Amino acid sequence: MRISQLSAESGVPIPTIKYYLREGLLPQGEQTSATRAEYGPAHLRRLRLIRALLEVGRVPVAAIRTVIEAVEDERTDVHTMLGTAHYALASRPEPLAGDEEWARAREDVDRLIADLGWGVGPLAPGRDELAQTLVTLARLGMPATHADLLVYAQTAMNLARDHEMGKIPFDGPRDAAVETLVICTVMYGKALDVFRRLAQESESARILGA
Amino acid sequence: MRISQLSAESGVPIPTIKYYLREGLLPQGEQTSATRAEYGPAHLRRLRLIRALLEVGRVPVAAIRTVIEAVEDERTDVHTMLGTAHYALASRPEPLAGDEEWARAREDVDRLIADLGWGVGPLAPGRDELAQTLVTLARLGMPATHADLLVYAQTAMNLARDHEMGKIPFDGPRDAAVETLVICTVMYGKALDVFRRLAQESESARILGA
Repeated sequence: MRISQLSAESGVPIPTIKYYLREGLLPQGEQTSATRAEYGPAHLRRLRLIRALLEVGRVPVAAIRTVIEAVEDERTDVHTMLGTAHYALASRPEPLAGDEEWARAREDVDRLIADLGWGVGPLAPGRDELAQTLVTLARLGMPATHADLLVYAQTAMNLARDHEMGKIPFDGPRDAAVETLVICTVMYGKALDVFRRLAQESESARILGA
Repeated sequence: MRISQLSAESGVPIPTIKYYLREGLLPQGEQTSATRAEYGPAHLRRLRLIRALLEVGRVPVAAIRTVIEAVEDERTDVHTMLGTAHYALASRPEPLAGDEEWARAREDVDRLIADLGWGVGPLAPGRDELAQTLVTLARLGMPATHADLLVYAQTAMNLARDHEMGKIPFDGPRDAAVETLVICTVMYGKALDVFRRLAQESESARILGA
């Protein structure tokens, strides 16, 4: 298809498509004449992935480039490729250098993940994000207990194992797997967050007899 | 205590405390002379609540005023008071007027909440937030099934019932109850989100033998 049809089918405006082509996020089409290139289903899939990272994951363009490089480099195994997407979704808090409280929280997180037996890379940004959450809770006078953390960890694992990772099309095109992971992680995270507030309201009504 | 000590104990700078006093978010101290006022533990508690809403909940100042009014008006029952905090934490998506897809999603959400038997107010902003999430998933080509939604709803209810609402000090001062609700909802929501990404990474490693 021509660029105009690619735009119509993807809903992405032509100037934006040209920007992605220039930035190397979208592979060039097949040049059929000096002024004309042909695009195919792989381009549509790639545009879906870029849109998912940008609009659903709110991943900055520089980080999208890293994810796309992992998708395009077939020597990057699928687990590592999915990991780059995961890591791009993280909020990457600034670790407070020399802050003992923070260093202790980070050690607690590493020990917890080891105790759970989870296969999580040493550089996973979730380790720092979790440490920061623990420091914030402690500073607000509501330190999390080990039992609390285990409940949330186990809940997360049940969802990941029984409901989330099964949605990923591991044997399809590489960009489709990454796209599904990003959409699943972000959108069901949003749904879970809203359901928690609704459930709390319902429980408040029940406890207080409202 | 004097305003300087209130500032030292709360960590809130004096000009900020004066701003809260002018805006009516913090009650005036007891005037002990023309230039001097005394503050007590209730002021410290209120500053903690404002900080939790602002920094943890990222609630805008106008919405904080609404929450504080509910806290101060003893005729507002505790359930309604907690509800104003809950509603202030919502992202309040713009409902797409006249959009049939959106209206249908909103009906699905209302039916789901009724089927679950949850006691959720008709104006709870979570209804719109959830409808928007469903529309986004469908537009991205990954519509949520009824079974999917039930899993997330049930997971959220288990957390709210068994682990979250029990932390709220219902019989303590009103602002302490709201503060705990906000911190619990936001910070454990953050922890759950991070645990989900870590669990997904661990499952990816297991499935792909990495």
